[in-house]
Amino acid sequence: MTDVQSILDRIGEAMQATKDRGTVAQYIPPLARVDPAQFGMAVAFADGRLFSTGDAETRFSIQSISKVFTLSLALGRLGDAFWSKVGREPSGQAFNSILQLEHEAGRPRNPFINAGAIATTDAAMAHHAPRDFLAELVQFVRAAAGDEDIHIDAAVAQSEQATGDLNRSLAYFMASHQRLQNPVEQVLGAYFHQCALSMTCVQLARAGLMLTGAPGAPRLMSPARRTRINALMMLCGHYDASGDFAFRVGLPGKSGVGGGILIVAPGKASIAVWSPGLNAQGNSKLGTEAAEMFAQATGWSVFS
Amino acid sequence: MTDVQSILDRIGEAMQATKDRGTVAQYIPPLARVDPAQFGMAVAFADGRLFSTGDAETRFSIQSISKVFTLSLALGRLGDAFWSKVGREPSGQAFNSILQLEHEAGRPRNPFINAGAIATTDAAMAHHAPRDFLAELVQFVRAAAGDEDIHIDAAVAQSEQATGDLNRSLAYFMASHQRLQNPVEQVLGAYFHQCALSMTCVQLARAGLMLTGAPGAPRLMSPARRTRINALMMLCGHYDASGDFAFRVGLPGKSGVGGGILIVAPGKASIAVWSPGLNAQGNSKLGTEAAEMFAQATGWSVFS
Amino acid sequence: MTDVQSILDRIGEAMQATKDRGTVAQYIPPLARVDPAQFGMAVAFADGRLFSTGDAETRFSIQSISKVFTLSLALGRLGDAFWSKVGREPSGQAFNSILQLEHEAGRPRNPFINAGAIATTDAAMAHHAPRDFLAELVQFVRAAAGDEDIHIDAAVAQSEQATGDLNRSLAYFMASHQRLQNPVEQVLGAYFHQCALSMTCVQLARAGLMLTGAPGAPRLMSPARRTRINALMMLCGHYDASGDFAFRVGLPGKSGVGGGILIVAPGKASIAVWSPGLNAQGNSKLGTEAAEMFAQATGWSVFS
Amino acid sequence: MTDVQSILDRIGEAMQATKDRGTVAQYIPPLARVDPAQFGMAVAFADGRLFSTGDAETRFSIQSISKVFTLSLALGRLGDAFWSKVGREPSGQAFNSILQLEHEAGRPRNPFINAGAIATTDAAMAHHAPRDFLAELVQFVRAAAGDEDIHIDAAVAQSEQATGDLNRSLAYFMASHQRLQNPVEQVLGAYFHQCALSMTCVQLARAGLMLTGAPGAPRLMSPARRTRINALMMLCGHYDASGDFAFRVGLPGKSGVGGGILIVAPGKASIAVWSPGLNAQGNSKLGTEAAEMFAQATGWSVFS
Repeated sequence: MTDVQSILDRIGEAMQATKDRGTVAQYIPPLARVDPAQFGMAVAFADGRLFSTGDAETRFSIQSISKVFTLSLALGRLGDAFWSKVGREPSGQAFNSILQLEHEAGRPRNPFINAGAIATTDAAMAHHAPRDFLAELVQFVRAAAGDEDIHIDAAVAQSEQATGDLNRSLAYFMASHQRLQNPVEQVLGAYFHQCALSMTCVQLARAGLMLTGAPGAPRLMSPARRTRINALMMLCGHYDASGDFAFRVGLPGKSGVGGGILIVAPGKASIAVWSPGLNAQGNSKLGTEAAEMFAQATGWSVFS
Repeated sequence: MTDVQSILDRIGEAMQATKDRGTVAQYIPPLARVDPAQFGMAVAFADGRLFSTGDAETRFSIQSISKVFTLSLALGRLGDAFWSKVGREPSGQAFNSILQLEHEAGRPRNPFINAGAIATTDAAMAHHAPRDFLAELVQFVRAAAGDEDIHIDAAVAQSEQATGDLNRSLAYFMASHQRLQNPVEQVLGAYFHQCALSMTCVQLARAGLMLTGAPGAPRLMSPARRTRINALMMLCGHYDASGDFAFRVGLPGKSGVGGGILIVAPGKASIAVWSPGLNAQGNSKLGTEAAEMFAQATGWSVFS
Repeated sequence: MTDVQSILDRIGEAMQATKDRGTVAQYIPPLARVDPAQFGMAVAFADGRLFSTGDAETRFSIQSISKVFTLSLALGRLGDAFWSKVGREPSGQAFNSILQLEHEAGRPRNPFINAGAIATTDAAMAHHAPRDFLAELVQFVRAAAGDEDIHIDAAVAQSEQATGDLNRSLAYFMASHQRLQNPVEQVLGAYFHQCALSMTCVQLARAGLMLTGAPGAPRLMSPARRTRINALMMLCGHYDASGDFAFRVGLPGKSGVGGGILIVAPGKASIAVWSPGLNAQGNSKLGTEAAEMFAQATGWSVFS
Repeated sequence: MTDVQSILDRIGEAMQATKDRGTVAQYIPPLARVDPAQFGMAVAFADGRLFSTGDAETRFSIQSISKVFTLSLALGRLGDAFWSKVGREPSGQAFNSILQLEHEAGRPRNPFINAGAIATTDAAMAHHAPRDFLAELVQFVRAAAGDEDIHIDAAVAQSEQATGDLNRSLAYFMASHQRLQNPVEQVLGAYFHQCALSMTCVQLARAGLMLTGAPGAPRLMSPARRTRINALMMLCGHYDASGDFAFRVGLPGKSGVGGGILIVAPGKASIAVWSPGLNAQGNSKLGTEAAEMFAQATGWSVFS
């Protein structure tokens, strides 16, 4: 499939030439220090073929993309009972907004806004210690990617912890409505570490294959569950810019503040793109543009 | 394709046997009087095949489903300039909420909430009289459906007008932010009549073919525009239950308070379902259930 | 009481010397044209003594100050039943916000925010024509002021009408919750004209005497009603800057976007101040400063 | 002044006969266990006279009434610089709402809603340890009341701590906006203990004398500061029922969830009333009724 490689080459060149690369996240030093000149992209197929361009082998902090993996674990543990804890509607608010929690009795709208992700981590933990949950999570991601060399970046986790007061506020708010089963500080500890998972585009693209349902892809969940996680990524994966991503790219995706985006082309392939500079909505600027170019070139939008 | 017919038969039987049929919309007498026992469904293919079950030839008020047609006209007239007037994000609020307008300077979040639909009608009207716009709209729907026997129900339009104070409030709010180009009462007149379009499931399914992009379907807009309208239907087509519909059905859809839902299976077919009783979110209760059964039976979810 | 005159003289000089005079309201031409260099103040006692400084005999548009008079009429007509229609709590929002209406089923929080004032006008009108209500209102204000030369400025009323879409939005919102008994356009017509009452500081100070309860003041309502109107002015009279006015001045007051403020010193006197430039909260900048100087100089704060 | 005593006697009898005594706060066991049959009231004059009725010598948890004392300390420490940290406007929201914080960058609207009170405690602490701040606070209240027998109820403080997740959420939200100078848990520790101050009506009435400005009252702050604290109590002292209290009672007051209310009649006397059952707004039901009867009987409303 020389086609995909030539598309990636073209995208890589275009991105290299782009001057406005967005703004690197500033809220923790390990992210603020990342060089905005970087750009990488990888496309993985279930039959093992992998195409890439740019810094596709450079590790970056996947941040909120980890929410997809935790959601998979939580659904695996609770099944549909999970949805009594967390909703599945777009919030119409910023990723870290607390407004909706007050209006809806502390129940977060979906698993991808911060509050919902914290509640999802709480559910996925069951009553285990954070370290046991994290071990299981890392193991799950490694199995999905078929790569043992995936780790949590302790320095990033520690920085998150040090600046996590808004997430603490969200968590205590939910706790005040009896929405969490574990002690708040333990849930947050697990959550901050989960966000500090460090992966390359190649690893991330491979890990996303489980969501494609393509023949030969790792089957880590039922087709129904896979389908529904894709639906959630489409509806809520880019916070309050999810509509824009669906409009421009037309594929389920989940972004992270580290500049990565995981994109699923159901039945076809899994795509990971990374560039640390963010647009005004907090999603990777070049990553979004690259995803749009890729979707147009391949015609892979689920809506066409 | 006896398959589709047998699926429809099965759905028709299941729906007939369902006791809890939801609640028929009460806000205007012509809707409140509709018999909740009715259920119809039709599936149209681009090659002319059409399958149906139940009351698929009974006319009903398509209400908000008309917003899809008006959006098509507005985009045809303005192109991407349209998006300076209306956003494309889910609102996280009820279909008739005014909160978001106050927070975002009178710019509605998407073309399918009431405020956004009114702004879309205003854009589609250009500076024509309501009657000229309505003539164009009806002509467009007839062309899409390949059926001249499609009309606006004057009694329904008049009832909408008589009870439309909340829509008036939305429209004047936008006008106070200079968001409308036509006089408010003219925009509302056009909007109330547009919502009063009366169609059968068969007609509606055929009219939806233009959005499938299936070979042979009427081509009334560019592929890019078609794809994007589908994306908007997926993200915002069921108001604050769009996430739920995406999760359960996995296909772009647009519901109306009259109990109809238009569903697009890109590349495959167009589906219309109708049953007047609504669920708590204001969408057809049996319609949603039938759509879910259909998507599961066919495996047509765009996310699988 | 040469004391009051010398206080006013001192204030008048200080205000004349003030360079930052705020910004004159721009939303209608008749207000935008007013010369910001003007400042007037008058203090009326129940025994007939009247002290003044500056442009105290110049007419200005009293705008929202008229809400005090309409509230008096509405309470006169309905008694405590009025409070089933309108609340009496500060809103914590801008004077023209619609948010609270959506959260509280269309019932405005108090009679002084725009929505509440429109509902109050509706109540005061009973089922009379706008012109009859307005005749009664003007008569009431003239009686309170003991001055027949008080009129509605037709040009201002017409301008309000032409730019009143936000007030229309508020009114239709309330109508959609069955909160108004008269047709919306009639209520608004009455409301726009009421706001266009034109008075001088001297007239306004005299008209406010009825709220002082001082011996000899016109008794146009029961002591209990008078006391309660003062309480409402204190809590809600300056919209979302009521706390600031209470903190700095310590007297019940009602401001208008024309730059006027009516202030009541219970048991003592009635004060009117006017300067057209507004501060960031939409209240007269110099008027507020003058009121603060006056309250400090006299020690008349109700809280001391 | 047998007058006041006979008024209190009449109120005491009326309250004893009242069947609907409201609902005792349930959120912590020490409050939930309090007998709702109790009612006490005390009126203190600056010349030492003290009148009382009912359970005026029974200790109760003053809860949010303590916010008045902490505010006094914070203003004493910071002067007007305090107002850069906390606003002075009614919030239009429940006492524990977090909405306003999100809309206004973490700056609480006034010192009496929970968020504002936590910020006030933080300011009053300066950089001292909680125990030092609490020692100073208790000393201040004892000095105001002229009574050494005033203490913090450790069991109540501990219960507050155990159920304080919503307050934690508020505090961490403010911390995320750099609004607190002390570690969150220390501020909260101080806050929970401050709310657990235990006093009788007699002690509380005497402690309130400092706010009356009556000749002979303890002078613990400047007249200007005293006046302004009264203004804040009037505008914000009963959360989202402050308008109602001003309307019905017409005197500055501060309520607590323990069922107490401290009321100031400027220039005249200080009143404390207590009955543990709360009304729908979370203020003492009988306490409010008694305050209204007292204000009507004495004519002490500041608005008359």
